[in-house]
Amino acid sequence: MGNRKHTMQIGVIGAGECSPKIKKLAEEVGREIAKRGATLVCGGLGGVMEAAAKGAKEAGGLTIGILPGFKAGEANPYIDVVVVTGMSYARNVIVVRSSDVLIAIEGKYGTLSEIAFALQLHKPIVGLNTWKVSEEILSLSSPVEAVEKAIGLAKGKMG
Amino acid sequence: MGNRKHTMQIGVIGAGECSPKIKKLAEEVGREIAKRGATLVCGGLGGVMEAAAKGAKEAGGLTIGILPGFKAGEANPYIDVVVVTGMSYARNVIVVRSSDVLIAIEGKYGTLSEIAFALQLHKPIVGLNTWKVSEEILSLSSPVEAVEKAIGLAKGKMG
Amino acid sequence: MGNRKHTMQIGVIGAGECSPKIKKLAEEVGREIAKRGATLVCGGLGGVMEAAAKGAKEAGGLTIGILPGFKAGEANPYIDVVVVTGMSYARNVIVVRSSDVLIAIEGKYGTLSEIAFALQLHKPIVGLNTWKVSEEILSLSSPVEAVEKAIGLAKGKMG
Amino acid sequence: MGNRKHTMQIGVIGAGECSPKIKKLAEEVGREIAKRGATLVCGGLGGVMEAAAKGAKEAGGLTIGILPGFKAGEANPYIDVVVVTGMSYARNVIVVRSSDVLIAIEGKYGTLSEIAFALQLHKPIVGLNTWKVSEEILSLSSPVEAVEKAIGLAKGKMG
Repeated sequence: MGNRKHTMQIGVIGAGECSPKIKKLAEEVGREIAKRGATLVCGGLGGVMEAAAKGAKEAGGLTIGILPGFKAGEANPYIDVVVVTGMSYARNVIVVRSSDVLIAIEGKYGTLSEIAFALQLHKPIVGLNTWKVSEEILSLSSPVEAVEKAIGLAKGKMG
Repeated sequence: MGNRKHTMQIGVIGAGECSPKIKKLAEEVGREIAKRGATLVCGGLGGVMEAAAKGAKEAGGLTIGILPGFKAGEANPYIDVVVVTGMSYARNVIVVRSSDVLIAIEGKYGTLSEIAFALQLHKPIVGLNTWKVSEEILSLSSPVEAVEKAIGLAKGKMG
Repeated sequence: MGNRKHTMQIGVIGAGECSPKIKKLAEEVGREIAKRGATLVCGGLGGVMEAAAKGAKEAGGLTIGILPGFKAGEANPYIDVVVVTGMSYARNVIVVRSSDVLIAIEGKYGTLSEIAFALQLHKPIVGLNTWKVSEEILSLSSPVEAVEKAIGLAKGKMG
Repeated sequence: MGNRKHTMQIGVIGAGECSPKIKKLAEEVGREIAKRGATLVCGGLGGVMEAAAKGAKEAGGLTIGILPGFKAGEANPYIDVVVVTGMSYARNVIVVRSSDVLIAIEGKYGTLSEIAFALQLHKPIVGLNTWKVSEEILSLSSPVEAVEKAIGLAKGKMG
């Protein structure tokens, strides 16, 4: 993200539907992001995206939802800023580009496309129980550890 | 923007380069937006976009910059949330879609494309010294009046 | 389009619904494009796009439809190559970028957005009964003249 | 691609740089596609894309290059129709959406993003020495077999 001086933006990527266990994990990730003063970027819909945004809001953070569809009303209720792309899955690239670092939580094919873009764009990426398609994805199991590591990686990139 | 319950998002569109007089106008528009608690959406670069964001920040508002390029560092210094699209002018559609109402200030061909999309998408639009391509664009001359009218129109739509 | 050596691509832009008179005009434009060995680029839907593609096919030409939606089946029956963007109006930029020169026939706000992009990207543009937003748009009234002029302008650009 | 009646469009995806061995494989895939009357869709650049387009042209086929950049001149010399997106990696989604079926040949992260989109969009996909991220990817080793299988799968979908 160049010589960026703005608040750090951390992308949380994962499926629009997930188990209660994964939801809890995402919520904790969101909370830790907000507690450290970073902004949460996500796809704005349900599942992992909603849980992460919920966690971030509970800790007083700022949440950005980059939607695939045409209506702001499709955003989950924990999104502060709604970006309406109307570009369907092409918005996945925007989620990745708009994040200084990404945290992937589980996820299906949409998440895989975002992981692929992150690797292609040399964005640092931390994974919690996610696709193992590259050794460049740092696999961790605790939300606190994932967020701390993500912030460290982003700082390294942002210089 | 559907049955949106989030903070109102007002898009300010205009050229990346402009005269000091237009800059002053844009700054005042930004300030009035922030004073009324709305979020400023813009293209994130210089000229009208930078002046509006500067005004909004001075009044304690939140500013979103939807960039055409690849680098967050290209955003003007008054942008809080950076959306990096990497899609060049296709980001103009996203600026329009992400706004509940638009305020066009002067502007060249890029602004004209955004006005065209706003008209096509039936977004309310207020103009200050801008392209006169439709009677649906409400032409005004004062920033305060423009912002108040824009908020009224957005509320009517969001109602 | 750089130092392009491929077959010339001429974009025909106009509304998805139009009068029989405009349809006839578009059909003749398409026919003249094909007769001169150029490829027709358009938005792939009805109205002006369909009429131009029909004319081009009747004269043995090649037609490209760059669709806004998700389904190839939405293309009109005269499209040879279907490009499915799934990006709604953002596909308008792609229509413009993929054309060496543009011929605008009448048109509503969608066409206006394409004209704006063409002007912004310094693409030559010829107009038949269309938006008069710039002196850079060469206004003509005969299809044959419009296509000949367009080809001349494109050749000038392609060097 | 809905109830499509147009010529079948087969997407060949793979890296912009590859070994001579992979190039030969891609060229043969392109040739087989053209011999069967299908249109080749690809990303328009070098490596696998260029080799496939070369093979298709040698067999008299039609080739479409959907470019990420801004210049038609960036297309490889075997591309007949140039689609200039100016949207960088977001064009990967368009390559996938514009194909009735995909053949993935080896490939790096860009190809992985396309495979992910194909799986998400339920497009049939055949793989030659490529990413093994899903059992839905039919792995084959011969170009002839890959193309025949791809055509069969596309017909099943289009049927």
